[in-house]
This record gives sequence, structure tokens and C-alpha cells, in this order.
Amino acid sequence: MEHLSFLGLVQDDLKRVEAVLREQPLDQHEAIHSALDYLIGSGGKRLRPALVLLSSALCNADKERAIYAAAGVEMLHTATLVHDDLIDGALMRRGKGTLNARWTPGATVLTGDYLFARAASLVAQADSTRLTRRFAETLMIICNGEIAQMFDTHARTVTRQQYERRIYAKTASLIALSTQAGPILAQADEAINQALLAYGEQLGLAFQIVDDVLDFVADEETLGKPTGSDLRQGLVTLPTLLFLEAEPDHPLLRQVLAGAASDDALRQAVQLIATSPVIQQALAIASDYCQQAVQALRDFPASPYKEALSELAEFTACRRF
Amino acid sequence: MEHLSFLGLVQDDLKRVEAVLREQPLDQHEAIHSALDYLIGSGGKRLRPALVLLSSALCNADKERAIYAAAGVEMLHTATLVHDDLIDGALMRRGKGTLNARWTPGATVLTGDYLFARAASLVAQADSTRLTRRFAETLMIICNGEIAQMFDTHARTVTRQQYERRIYAKTASLIALSTQAGPILAQADEAINQALLAYGEQLGLAFQIVDDVLDFVADEETLGKPTGSDLRQGLVTLPTLLFLEAEPDHPLLRQVLAGAASDDALRQAVQLIATSPVIQQALAIASDYCQQAVQALRDFPASPYKEALSELAEFTACRRF
Repeated sequence: MEHLSFLGLVQDDLKRVEAVLREQPLDQHEAIHSALDYLIGSGGKRLRPALVLLSSALCNADKERAIYAAAGVEMLHTATLVHDDLIDGALMRRGKGTLNARWTPGATVLTGDYLFARAASLVAQADSTRLTRRFAETLMIICNGEIAQMFDTHARTVTRQQYERRIYAKTASLIALSTQAGPILAQADEAINQALLAYGEQLGLAFQIVDDVLDFVADEETLGKPTGSDLRQGLVTLPTLLFLEAEPDHPLLRQVLAGAASDDALRQAVQLIATSPVIQQALAIASDYCQQAVQALRDFPASPYKEALSELAEFTACRRF
Repeated sequence: MEHLSFLGLVQDDLKRVEAVLREQPLDQHEAIHSALDYLIGSGGKRLRPALVLLSSALCNADKERAIYAAAGVEMLHTATLVHDDLIDGALMRRGKGTLNARWTPGATVLTGDYLFARAASLVAQADSTRLTRRFAETLMIICNGEIAQMFDTHARTVTRQQYERRIYAKTASLIALSTQAGPILAQADEAINQALLAYGEQLGLAFQIVDDVLDFVADEETLGKPTGSDLRQGLVTLPTLLFLEAEPDHPLLRQVLAGAASDDALRQAVQLIATSPVIQQALAIASDYCQQAVQALRDFPASPYKEALSELAEFTACRRF
């Protein structure tokens, strides 16, 4: 994302966040050292740190503290991905092999745990117990959402409300933590805090919907992992949900969701959804959320940071990677 | 441990810690609810919360904050056990089935993660960023130690220094965090902080050595899990280490540590060590650490809390459960 103009404002600070992410405590085992290098070096969009920095600049929060908060939030995101990929048995992410593709489950669990701890230590360095508490509660929301998804997979149908609750837990909660970091660090008025919370939540929902669409329509090179992986796992995301609303008894879809489909049938189902009108419908819903995100910022006076956050929301609705 | 006289001073506060541990956020999934009930209900000695409360009382720290710190430290301990048991494939702990004996690995990983988050949230409620940071760094030390143990198992011999480093990471670090909670919350002088850190480290080393001895000599009912489980996993603890120092080429031991022993040979090896003089030698080493722990408190004026901490150290050296 570093070529995007609206990130120009925080480009130098993002480099400092990157340096903090790559710092390695001296006495840690070489295995952790190499895992951290590998995971942080695998890139990622650094959306969350950018949001911490922009919301902090918007609220005039202390920059040093914002940099630690930004690094902590990105480290938390990385930690959750390590455990997610292990649990899902995912072998590729961002075009590289996952940690669990190279290491035993035990070593992967422990590395994820180490990253959670490192994330908490970074956030604590931002020196706000309120932010640390929100950080911990956000991880509770994320884990709770994943456990709910795991235990409730017997439910054959997913409602839009259930889908929204799931993507809130999975993605919007951490993005909202990122956009709330600024007002929390600046001890801003509650109205400002609520506005940035609303911005982050709407943006986060939009971001995950676009991710779920891209899982159907992006090419595998851009995606960095196989297309259609959600459907392969029996996970109903918005495109599938919209398709089922229109055609509840579509035999191919029903077969796939019952877990009884061949690889060939799976590919056909992915193709069926990817070329159907539900893709545009899902993107329109994401676009609505982005507009609501921009709306949430309406009471802030004009500033380059407000502008950047608005552009970021518009970019999210249109992004194709 | 609640019948022990030196805990009488904090008995009421320990009940409040217990209540905080059993509090359950309203919006969490029923599966987490039942896992938390099960894990917290499985008991445990509550040694760490007792140490937080005693060190806090000794330093005149705020009691409300100490109660949250105590609950956070115990929740962290519980979280690490959940992932440890999963990784070790342990089926019993404290006389009850482990979580991983009932749930899938994925659900167990996520429940452990949830507990880490809950622990961080509780510690954050103690409202000290210094304590939160020490909390996070302690979890880094614990994970680092476990990863080192996992990656370095090819090392056929273990030195006493390596053993001490391992039990420091595994146990003493968290016990030292517990005893440091008081001075940190009270913002006590650095000398007081260092004294309670030293007390906790020595106590923690002693505690783990006695644990490692009990793994050989306790009966399974008291232990709540099979005897000799360390040796079965090829883990060299102090009794085995001392035995090998005396008889480096003992064929049965070598066979067991090469992972080439039958169940019968394993039982014989456990019996061999359990009935050898190394048990008393190991307990004497633990006793030395406990004396050093008591010594670390020498500059504190006489008080019931100092007395209780000293008695706790003496109890640790002599405990048989």
C-alpha cells in the first residue's frame, strides 16, 4: 500500500513502525528470530498501523506512543494469522508458505503465543492502560468469533446478521481498535472517540467483504493463495450468501456446502459465483459501508488526515488486491 | 493450599480473586463459557495469586488493583497450561481430563488464545503499564523457553545451567512476576522491587524442582496425572540429571533417553530414579533455593506478610503435593 498517495502523510512513521516490528529481543531463541523475520518480512498491507498513525495524527496524539501502538496492533494481527493458518491447515499466505507448512503444530502454536506476548508488550509501551485493555478485549472478540464459527458450522444456513457478526469479530474489531488508538492515546472527547470507532467498524466490515469477494474473483498470484478457499472450507461468505438468497436450492451449491463435492464441482461452484451478479451486489454493500465510514468523520474539521482517512475508505471499496 | 495457616492473611482476598476468575463476559460463546468453568473449576494451588496478594500487602499496594493482577496472573498460568497440554498430548491434569482430551486441537488453540487475552485484560485492570509490560515480557520468556526446549531436544546431554534456564523460563519467571506485582503496583523503591524479584525467582526455581521430584515419587492420585511423565517424554529434569552425573552410561537410562524403551523399561527407569539418592539431593537443592528466597527478604521489617512469605518458601521446600 505504500504507493498510495493518502499514506504519504505517514510514510516516514510507517518506516519507523516497520523498524520496531523487526526489532528482536537479544535473548530469544534463533527459531523465534527466524520465524519473526519470515513473518514480518512476508509483508502485508500494513493497513492497521497506517490507521493507528492517521487516527493519532488526526487527534494530535503523541507520535512515539502511536508508533508503538501501531506496531503492537500489526503484531497482534500477525499472531492471529499464525494460529488461523494452523487451524485451517492453510499452506500459503501472501504468496509464501505459512509457518505451519514448515513447522510442527506445537512450534507453530508457541510461536503464535510468543507473538501475542510481543504484541502486548509493544502496546504496553504506548503507555495507556485503556488502550491495553481495549487491545486485550479485541483479542477476546476475535477468538470468540472464531470459536463460534468453529462450533456453529453445523448450522446449514447463515443469515446476513450472522455473517456480519462474524466479520465484525474477525476483521472490523481490530480495525476499529486501530482507528480508536488515536483518540484513546490523545484522551480525546468521547464524541471523537465514538466517531473514530464508527469509522473503523464500517471500514472494517467493508474491508472484509471486499476480501471475501476477492477470494472468488482475484487471480491466485494477486491473492497469494488459492482462489475459492473459503468455499472449499465450507465457509459461507457474502457472495455465497447472496447467491443462496436468490437460489436457495441450487444443487451444485448445496452439494458443495454439504461437503460432498469433488474438486471439479468445487471449481465449478467458485466459477458460478464469481461470474454471477452477486459479486457486484456484494461490492455495492461494501461501498455502502465505506460511505458510512466517511460519514462518521463529518464533524471533524477539514485536515489532511481527515482527507487521508476518507480516501482510504474510498480506496477500500474499490481495491482489487 | 487454602488450609495453610500462612495464607490466612489473604484468604478473603483469594476468594475475591476466585470470583473475578469465574466472571464471564456476557457475549462470549457457550463453548468458552463451559471451558472456562471447567478449567477454573479444576482448581490448582492458586500459589501465584497468593503471592501477588502477599507481595502487594507487604508493599501497601492498593488491594483492588492487586486482586485484578492476581486474577490476571492465574489466568495467564491457566492459558499456558492449555497450550502445553495440547502440545505434549497430555490427557490428564489435576485428576481431570485436559481440554485437548475433549476438544479438537483447533478449538483448544483458540480457547488458550482467548484465555491469554482475558489474562491481559485482567492485568490491564490493575492499571499499571509497567506491570502489563512485565506481564507480556514474562509470557515471551515462557514461550521462548518452550521453543528452545522443543528445538534443542536433539541435545543428548543437559547441563545444570541449561536445566536451570529452562525451569526459570517455565516457572520461576511467572512466580517472580507474581512477587514483583506488589512493589510495581505500590511504586516501591527499586531495592524493594529487586528483593521481591529475587525472592520470587529463588522460590520459583525451588517450586519447579520439587515438582520435578514429585513427578517421580508422588502417587498418581496425589499427582493427578501419570507418574514419570517427564521421562516418558524424554525430558531430563534434575533427578535424571543428577543420576546421569553419577552414572553417565547407565544402559537403561540411555535406552530411555534415546526414545527406544518399552513401557516396562520406562517404568523400571522411573522406579530406579525414584528409589535412588538423587531424590534427596534434588530436594536439598530445592531447599537451598528456598533459604535464599527467605534471605532475599532480610531487609524488610518484621510483619505478618513477611512471615507468611517466609513460611510459604519453607512450605515449598517440604511440600509433597
